[in-house]
Amino acid sequence: MLNAQSKDVHQCDSGWVPVYVDQEKSISLMSIGFLLEHPDDAVVWRGPKKNALIKQFASDVAWGDLDFLIVDTPPGTSDEHIATVDALRPFNPMGALLVTTPQAVSVGDVRRELTFCKKTGLRVIGIVENMSGYVCPHCTECTNIFSKGGGEELARLSGVPFLGCVPLDPLLSQSLEQGKDFVQEFPNSAAYPAISSIARQILDMASPRS
Amino acid sequence: MLNAQSKDVHQCDSGWVPVYVDQEKSISLMSIGFLLEHPDDAVVWRGPKKNALIKQFASDVAWGDLDFLIVDTPPGTSDEHIATVDALRPFNPMGALLVTTPQAVSVGDVRRELTFCKKTGLRVIGIVENMSGYVCPHCTECTNIFSKGGGEELARLSGVPFLGCVPLDPLLSQSLEQGKDFVQEFPNSAAYPAISSIARQILDMASPRS
Repeated sequence: MLNAQSKDVHQCDSGWVPVYVDQEKSISLMSIGFLLEHPDDAVVWRGPKKNALIKQFASDVAWGDLDFLIVDTPPGTSDEHIATVDALRPFNPMGALLVTTPQAVSVGDVRRELTFCKKTGLRVIGIVENMSGYVCPHCTECTNIFSKGGGEELARLSGVPFLGCVPLDPLLSQSLEQGKDFVQEFPNSAAYPAISSIARQILDMASPRS
Repeated sequence: MLNAQSKDVHQCDSGWVPVYVDQEKSISLMSIGFLLEHPDDAVVWRGPKKNALIKQFASDVAWGDLDFLIVDTPPGTSDEHIATVDALRPFNPMGALLVTTPQAVSVGDVRRELTFCKKTGLRVIGIVENMSGYVCPHCTECTNIFSKGGGEELARLSGVPFLGCVPLDPLLSQSLEQGKDFVQEFPNSAAYPAISSIARQILDMASPRS
């Protein structure tokens, strides 16, 4: 998605050097993908090994000064999530952003993730509904391929902020496939205002206007 | 999806009694969801506990005579997958059916799952591409919301059978949301011929015509 598949991680005195997406080093990345010999290698690791690496990603990477550290986790409430919360607790994280799709099975997963956040004392920044409706590029009619409103309903019931719906958008998918900068290339697409509004709300929470 | 949310698992002399979807007991289910007190409970378990339960699901459930045992795993190649392959190896399983969506990130995951199957000696029954194109119900034009053909290409490159593409279909989503029998209710929908053909190919592999 960020056009960084073939990049390598190097060592420096203060630890692993993350992979930089651009010359300006505006985005630094770390992923187990960069540590594999071949991109098709399966990471057949049980929990303890995964937990150790997650801990290392927090402590042994020379992140430098960051505005935001974003951890993209798999769905669920297992090893990866426990390890991430444990590793970041000393840094007083802003919280968890929960992303669901509209279907009941997905909302159910996120409901259990809310319980996980409560149990572990992690604040929930908000809920986002992804894949929320589709505007046909031929006739401009909007259909809900999946159901609709599950994310918003869950946010209301659980008393956490609902940050918005991101529609299915072929231009967004295309950008991610080709590693293009969606925000620069498609400011008039269907998903743009949704993503931009969600980002603005999170920025506002991070540095509230005085 | 199968309208079984509120059902309970009972004990009998030969182990746990699975949950039956219908009176005829044509489908038996077992899931950790049936063992939770509340449906919103998060299962905050590390690997070893999950592995032990997966083993129990294979050994301690009174499955009776089954035509097929289908294990629906999360994506990836971690604890759940190792535990499932280990638990079922004595029963000489038919193999793994790999499901991808068309995007490169999803195909990449499945490519690593192919490596996992090779490493663990598990046969690959075939690859299916899900969410493959969308026929607008208003104008009947087909668009590829995501890219297209990633599943077929991967099957070709890795020499495993490609079993077909399942399009995005609001009628299928609706059936799954409401726990309806899609095959009975919507035989004329877009996804029906795809699903039916995939099922037929797998049945043919399981009991080849003499």
